[in-house]
Amino acid sequence: EPPPEPPASPVAARPPEAEDPPAADRLAGLLDLKPTIQMRGRVEADAVLASQSEQSKATLGDLMNGYGFRRVRLGAQGTVGDSTSWVSEVELAGGNVRLRDVFVGLDAIPGVRQVRIGHFREPYSLEGMTSSNFITFLERAPQNVLAPARNWGVCGFWWPDDERVLFSVGAFRDGTPSNGQSLGDDGNWAVTTRLTGLPVYEPDEDAFRLVHLGGAFSQRVPPNGVINFTPRTGSNLLSVDDNPGSPFLAPVDIPANGYQLYNLQAAGVWGSFSAQAEWSAAGVQQTDAGSVFVHGSYLAVSYFTTGEHRGYNRTRGSFDQVGVRRPLIRSRTDPRGGWGAVELVARFAYLDFTSPNLPPDANGFPAATRLYEFTTGANWYLNSYTRVMLNYTAGIPYPVGAPSTVAHIFGVRYALFF
Amino acid sequence: EPPPEPPASPVAARPPEAEDPPAADRLAGLLDLKPTIQMRGRVEADAVLASQSEQSKATLGDLMNGYGFRRVRLGAQGTVGDSTSWVSEVELAGGNVRLRDVFVGLDAIPGVRQVRIGHFREPYSLEGMTSSNFITFLERAPQNVLAPARNWGVCGFWWPDDERVLFSVGAFRDGTPSNGQSLGDDGNWAVTTRLTGLPVYEPDEDAFRLVHLGGAFSQRVPPNGVINFTPRTGSNLLSVDDNPGSPFLAPVDIPANGYQLYNLQAAGVWGSFSAQAEWSAAGVQQTDAGSVFVHGSYLAVSYFTTGEHRGYNRTRGSFDQVGVRRPLIRSRTDPRGGWGAVELVARFAYLDFTSPNLPPDANGFPAATRLYEFTTGANWYLNSYTRVMLNYTAGIPYPVGAPSTVAHIFGVRYALFF
Amino acid sequence: EPPPEPPASPVAARPPEAEDPPAADRLAGLLDLKPTIQMRGRVEADAVLASQSEQSKATLGDLMNGYGFRRVRLGAQGTVGDSTSWVSEVELAGGNVRLRDVFVGLDAIPGVRQVRIGHFREPYSLEGMTSSNFITFLERAPQNVLAPARNWGVCGFWWPDDERVLFSVGAFRDGTPSNGQSLGDDGNWAVTTRLTGLPVYEPDEDAFRLVHLGGAFSQRVPPNGVINFTPRTGSNLLSVDDNPGSPFLAPVDIPANGYQLYNLQAAGVWGSFSAQAEWSAAGVQQTDAGSVFVHGSYLAVSYFTTGEHRGYNRTRGSFDQVGVRRPLIRSRTDPRGGWGAVELVARFAYLDFTSPNLPPDANGFPAATRLYEFTTGANWYLNSYTRVMLNYTAGIPYPVGAPSTVAHIFGVRYALFF
Repeated sequence: EPPPEPPASPVAARPPEAEDPPAADRLAGLLDLKPTIQMRGRVEADAVLASQSEQSKATLGDLMNGYGFRRVRLGAQGTVGDSTSWVSEVELAGGNVRLRDVFVGLDAIPGVRQVRIGHFREPYSLEGMTSSNFITFLERAPQNVLAPARNWGVCGFWWPDDERVLFSVGAFRDGTPSNGQSLGDDGNWAVTTRLTGLPVYEPDEDAFRLVHLGGAFSQRVPPNGVINFTPRTGSNLLSVDDNPGSPFLAPVDIPANGYQLYNLQAAGVWGSFSAQAEWSAAGVQQTDAGSVFVHGSYLAVSYFTTGEHRGYNRTRGSFDQVGVRRPLIRSRTDPRGGWGAVELVARFAYLDFTSPNLPPDANGFPAATRLYEFTTGANWYLNSYTRVMLNYTAGIPYPVGAPSTVAHIFGVRYALFF
Repeated sequence: EPPPEPPASPVAARPPEAEDPPAADRLAGLLDLKPTIQMRGRVEADAVLASQSEQSKATLGDLMNGYGFRRVRLGAQGTVGDSTSWVSEVELAGGNVRLRDVFVGLDAIPGVRQVRIGHFREPYSLEGMTSSNFITFLERAPQNVLAPARNWGVCGFWWPDDERVLFSVGAFRDGTPSNGQSLGDDGNWAVTTRLTGLPVYEPDEDAFRLVHLGGAFSQRVPPNGVINFTPRTGSNLLSVDDNPGSPFLAPVDIPANGYQLYNLQAAGVWGSFSAQAEWSAAGVQQTDAGSVFVHGSYLAVSYFTTGEHRGYNRTRGSFDQVGVRRPLIRSRTDPRGGWGAVELVARFAYLDFTSPNLPPDANGFPAATRLYEFTTGANWYLNSYTRVMLNYTAGIPYPVGAPSTVAHIFGVRYALFF
Repeated sequence: EPPPEPPASPVAARPPEAEDPPAADRLAGLLDLKPTIQMRGRVEADAVLASQSEQSKATLGDLMNGYGFRRVRLGAQGTVGDSTSWVSEVELAGGNVRLRDVFVGLDAIPGVRQVRIGHFREPYSLEGMTSSNFITFLERAPQNVLAPARNWGVCGFWWPDDERVLFSVGAFRDGTPSNGQSLGDDGNWAVTTRLTGLPVYEPDEDAFRLVHLGGAFSQRVPPNGVINFTPRTGSNLLSVDDNPGSPFLAPVDIPANGYQLYNLQAAGVWGSFSAQAEWSAAGVQQTDAGSVFVHGSYLAVSYFTTGEHRGYNRTRGSFDQVGVRRPLIRSRTDPRGGWGAVELVARFAYLDFTSPNLPPDANGFPAATRLYEFTTGANWYLNSYTRVMLNYTAGIPYPVGAPSTVAHIFGVRYALFF
């Protein structure tokens, strides 16, 4: 990521690409139609440390420290002429191969900007659509357990020429394993749709300003008649899953034949300041019991002390690369070099898993929990491709009928993408 | 694939490469001998659906639908000067790493065009030597279970300057696991040889014409004293195996100390029309019972409604890339752009596993089966690197002493290679 | 490897790179700061055969022949400006993904040449720091079981402008699994430091000469309170481990809370002749028993019959690429082409695992062993990137209180890196 969307809107912060060649030359080049190939990947080296009271360990289990890689991705992307684009990238941390974005995009069908086929993120939340290269915190907010993440499917994308509105709808195989193969005669399908818009978009580099508003909806049938929003077994703070569950929630299996996901999202950028908020919910039709409704939300703010602003990709409807003004270089005398960019960040998140019909957890205990999570930290961007992230998170689960406890998590990441 | 065979015969349909530099410059470049490196890979996103009667399910088991990737390969290839070529490509679908073509070729030994060392396809059938990028159907014909596919080994390749005859012979470690390591003191070796020729070869783009004739033979010792031509456990229609077994055959273990494989192959291209046929057989010396002889064959035809012809690689003796005349591009006004190429395809295949000495299947039932398989479909080439394939297959196994049933399989693939 | 160390000392044997651009242009380029990306990888196809007496099989187990890949690595490396360098490479042989060098280097911090964060070799022995592309024999000497190999950690590197001294010190997570994730609250950390110098360094291509002297030390806490220097289960002569154990030692678990590693290293190159020697030792504080001290050493010599010399990398303090003078090319008439380079090699190695407090082996038998290993062979370099290696090893373990036996191992490798 960024994926190769041929008519891609330039990220405001990026340096302008080389001039397009004259139209005739360009067409000749298209008709040669040799595939372009570009390596892509990322490295995220993390250290995550937990501090818990004995009572917290009794409730949540012992949250173990983790030293290692959150993501080691390697792959390629490219195009064939202007009609086809593709991405093939896998996750290599954790010992197995996990498919991430592996898809082919058909970009020359009249009436639709792109038809994408393969394994990729369902168009849903703002956080989910924002690549891990550009998210504000080490981990997405807890409500992310209610987002569908990546599955095998087909999806269409539409936008007008001014790229101020973005619509997408697709059909996906719910619960596609990370090996990329969903086998079986079950009807575990999902239809997911997302609509976002930019009522304000002023890409002037010195007074960058935007307002992003949107929503998403998904109607789903789970595989094997069971939903599990909290699939974590044990308390791994350094999961390489595409969409890891929260360590603060009890694992619960919900027998169900269908469920719906709902999302509302809003964000604004005013120069160096940005704010972002989402609400996500799931309504589950349990097989032999009443409906379950769980939901969550977050509000996050960030501020660049060094004058930069967050980037935005108009054909993805998501945040994007930051253009660092004075990157770290070795030459100490050039006035254009510097110490990079610094971004101060904070987020408050809330998750309500107290639905009265929620089944008991894996150990037979009540699973109903209200979770408050507060995160603050700083991101140091050495340049537009490398950053060091520091996070402190206080996680405060309120299990219904039991006392709340606080767990403290400290995390640091050295991240680079290419 | 195509692998880097330095004196590679140009595929007739490909646009000509840039002119060779003058000999002196070229030699200077060779003596610098920096390795060339080129990424390669492919993505094949499949949906395969089965329709069976209850009786068919009772006989064959329930053939499950599959949505996912048949192949996600990533790797690199290159050369060092004109003396060394190499390929290193792995299969990433299915959760593990499976080695595919991983070999080094020595191209400057007098008396042999290439000596190849590593893990690669034994030189055998026409279908097997044709890359999955260029095969006519979603899956190779059922007789492919009698082909050796890829193993660890050493192989030499010879051809005259006019590239009208191709001979190869190699020694391979039979049953090399897909992790690329065959351990043990057993003598599970194979010697495989293939001879093909082009009695007719007229590469004129407007009246392309060729006749390919050939044969192959392999003398083999199986690992652990057991052969299994039908290693499928369960009925996975979306196997990522290098050489998946037929879902229509019962799994049978044949205890044996040695076996032979025989192949005859013929193909012709007359402009847009092509026909291709093969016969493959295996003779097995069972350890404590009489010999087993099984065999199969197929006849396939294809026709491009849009004027193209199938490509052919003379130093591989296999079909190759199709040069699409009017690729799909977004510009609707340029007369050179179009909607791509369309190929209509049909194949009849037969497999005779009725040898009287065949042991019973894994469940103790008689395994003898005669299989008829009919496949038809269409391939839409968006450009020379991307195609959508549609197949319908009727598989009709006749188990000896039991009634025959029909299973219907519908498949669609979006395939791209780079 | 070689990893991207921006102020990298040129390997003496390499052709000079293109001239640096003028300073102003170079700075402008740095401030654009697009990541450079370069694929890297290697293929090592091995055949290893063992010959043992029945008595040797009874003592050591049956050493099985191995045909396959010792290493199939694929990855990328690059830089972002002059402040950041990175490597991301994985091992693909053996069926799983094993992380090798995966790290980000920060190259613009005042006072330190590079700070490296991620998964990489701890700075320790001369053999260990020398890439498998450039080691003299198929396998490193048996004392390599006393080297820490790769772990997750942070390390700083220092050298003066003349690159004649190299110092490094780092903190690492002892026993990081090859999936790159060390989880748990244990204090399994290590501090490792290495100091090497070049009292003689005369890079004149026609009279290349150097003397390398150095030492390394590591203070370590093992994971789970147990050390195992001989973790081999079964006798795999073709292990893809980063640091495979010796097939001639009995596996022993040593319960311990801490241990130290000591290394002394020396090497010299006098034109085509080179000699290299190391001594490594481990002192273990057993939990409930007396201290264990084990140690080993080797002396290796090599001679190029074709006039080349071994390469050396001054910012890694390790041997490096050989510049082959007359590489193998197909043109038989050009006087600059030839048959490549030939290096004759021999090594004597010794390992003393007779410490009186050593616990019994996994079967309860005494584990104390004195091992003598003699290896000789030849390396044929087709060019600077490709070589065929031939080794014969006689391994003579002297188990204390039991008769010694000889095992003969023959190995051949076709190796290429890019």
